[in-house]
Amino acid sequence: MKDFIFEVDTKILFGEDQLKNLPSEIKKHGSRVLLCYGGGSIKKIGLYEDVIKLLEQNNIFYKELSGIEPNPRLESAVDGIKIVRENNIDFILAVGGGSVIDCAKLIAAGFYVDEDPWNIVTGKSRVEKALPIGTILTLAATGSEMDENSVITNLKTKQKLGWGSSKVLPKFSIMNPVYTYTVNAHHTASGVIDIMSHTMENYFSLNDGCYLVDRFSEGLLKTCVKYGPIALENPKDYDARANIMWANSWAINGLLSTGKSTDWSVHPMEHELSAFYDITHGIGLAILTPNWLKYVLNEHTARKISLFGKNVFELELSGDNFADANRAIDELRNFFNSLGVPSTLKEVGIGEEHLEEMAELTIKHKGRPIQGFAKLEAKDVLEIYKLSL
Amino acid sequence: MKDFIFEVDTKILFGEDQLKNLPSEIKKHGSRVLLCYGGGSIKKIGLYEDVIKLLEQNNIFYKELSGIEPNPRLESAVDGIKIVRENNIDFILAVGGGSVIDCAKLIAAGFYVDEDPWNIVTGKSRVEKALPIGTILTLAATGSEMDENSVITNLKTKQKLGWGSSKVLPKFSIMNPVYTYTVNAHHTASGVIDIMSHTMENYFSLNDGCYLVDRFSEGLLKTCVKYGPIALENPKDYDARANIMWANSWAINGLLSTGKSTDWSVHPMEHELSAFYDITHGIGLAILTPNWLKYVLNEHTARKISLFGKNVFELELSGDNFADANRAIDELRNFFNSLGVPSTLKEVGIGEEHLEEMAELTIKHKGRPIQGFAKLEAKDVLEIYKLSL
Repeated sequence: MKDFIFEVDTKILFGEDQLKNLPSEIKKHGSRVLLCYGGGSIKKIGLYEDVIKLLEQNNIFYKELSGIEPNPRLESAVDGIKIVRENNIDFILAVGGGSVIDCAKLIAAGFYVDEDPWNIVTGKSRVEKALPIGTILTLAATGSEMDENSVITNLKTKQKLGWGSSKVLPKFSIMNPVYTYTVNAHHTASGVIDIMSHTMENYFSLNDGCYLVDRFSEGLLKTCVKYGPIALENPKDYDARANIMWANSWAINGLLSTGKSTDWSVHPMEHELSAFYDITHGIGLAILTPNWLKYVLNEHTARKISLFGKNVFELELSGDNFADANRAIDELRNFFNSLGVPSTLKEVGIGEEHLEEMAELTIKHKGRPIQGFAKLEAKDVLEIYKLSL
Repeated sequence: MKDFIFEVDTKILFGEDQLKNLPSEIKKHGSRVLLCYGGGSIKKIGLYEDVIKLLEQNNIFYKELSGIEPNPRLESAVDGIKIVRENNIDFILAVGGGSVIDCAKLIAAGFYVDEDPWNIVTGKSRVEKALPIGTILTLAATGSEMDENSVITNLKTKQKLGWGSSKVLPKFSIMNPVYTYTVNAHHTASGVIDIMSHTMENYFSLNDGCYLVDRFSEGLLKTCVKYGPIALENPKDYDARANIMWANSWAINGLLSTGKSTDWSVHPMEHELSAFYDITHGIGLAILTPNWLKYVLNEHTARKISLFGKNVFELELSGDNFADANRAIDELRNFFNSLGVPSTLKEVGIGEEHLEEMAELTIKHKGRPIQGFAKLEAKDVLEIYKLSL
């Protein structure tokens, strides 16, 4: 187990009756709010109206930034920073899913940087401070409500890049599973897959002695395997939505990587797919992950993959690690299929035309080969893309 | 799943090379330190000398409070508060195990209360603020380094009571598994049992829909079952000590009870044993827990206990919940026995003489019957004590 620092001070207010605490939580940190949201979904479920009412009843000044996209774009953050500057905003409230929160994070940090906020995403500008952020989560997928990460898309440069800073960890997050009842099957499934992928990126590593957190990872994966199908079958099953929502936060807030040497593998490969084709992130992950596992299956990795099959899918081990690992990977593919998502790139309109370019860019944006569960250079990424066609 | 709030902002610095960060972490919160510790163990392992050197090299003023007991006593906290007041102390550094940290918590909160700090423990005085606390952990058992709880013994009133406040959550904790290499077999075993008991107090509940955190609990229990014996066999096994130490924090920092209706059952029963007989807490828990489970085994609880056997001890289920639950309980007893700890009250010198009084006091100190996995009144506690003779 490697040395690590763990510090996650986001206050989580979880459940059906927590929204009432919004004004008092905001007032701990600020008084002039930028309310960030996406399309109309928060209006459809009545949340927008409830939030506005609470802000107005409590005389909290606010301005709005709406229309933040899935795969949030640099331009939205630039717009947000402008509103913040023009209105002396001192608190960012993100209401929505990970995209809205990720955009809010770049606004919060970008406010303190004079030049282009894209420099924060690329790492050229260092984040020294950020405006405080609060979130009201309406989609379980990215875990952005309890972590320091953000992913921003720059359509001009065709880049979708992740960045992070402890300064943009939300001060509080209100998580009501009921807000996710109206999330459609497509986004419910891709959210569950995203959560599982975050977990697997941490979980699949070699002999690091991190037994405890690997058992936590398996528990989290089992939760997704149990409740993903239930949430699709009955979108208003509270326990399903609640377990998925809470799993979502713990998949990526840092606990599951404590003590581990992890280097995320599938996420960087997928980011190129969504940057080029604007596909839903979780769908890209579902297509790539089993092919990545097949590709990296070798004498070093077979045992861990077979344990994954035993501890997550309750497969009986035969003692033949390769056979067991292959069955585990097949089970993962079957599970993704059961969620009704595509399993090939062709199904989402991706052909061979950009595979090589995307493979090169995966490594270029990483700045070096992927050093995770198995080492991957551009040629390996290309092979995984090809397996996924 | 019930509504809940989760907020644990302790910064964890985990690993072999973290002590160097002590001065900078202290300086974030204070400049005049009360250094709290117990007997000579921190001197034996050289930690005392290292800490003093760091404080002096960094010109950090300090006074010492030494001799804090296992089952820390009110008097030590009173002494500590006196030193704090006389020296304008603004930061409490606890170096040791849970007893030292628990005492530090009462000093930190008691400083702001004019009257007897015992009023904080009994709940008569409300904790409005507390001095900041940092810890350097040398024993994995109570989880006090990352939670808001403290247990204090008042020998005059024969009371050992728990209290808690978010104000006394440590600001940081330095956790080096190497510091626990010299913990002897008795305290290693009782620490592991304490960790398991914290987990089980949260885990054993009925149909609450908290699937995710129950899987986390099982992962934590499996970690204790795997590494407890390894740590006894080879006290310098880094991964064993590290996994136990990290499990220790997560057993009781609040995560495993999120969304659950829990009412701790075995801890209040055990606190009477240690208050009357000053036995090691973990040993008392080991004696009581399997008997508690046998006593509460009924048609409602059988399924959960049998799942515990399957998911923690990998027992195959027969389909007969009662039989499976009994096997699970036997397995737990066998595991405790394998750690070399006593399994009856008689072995630790406890006879029938105070059982009735302790049973009455268990409920009296709780203020009502125990409403956990199964309802327990004083007569039930007495039966469990008798089963444990």
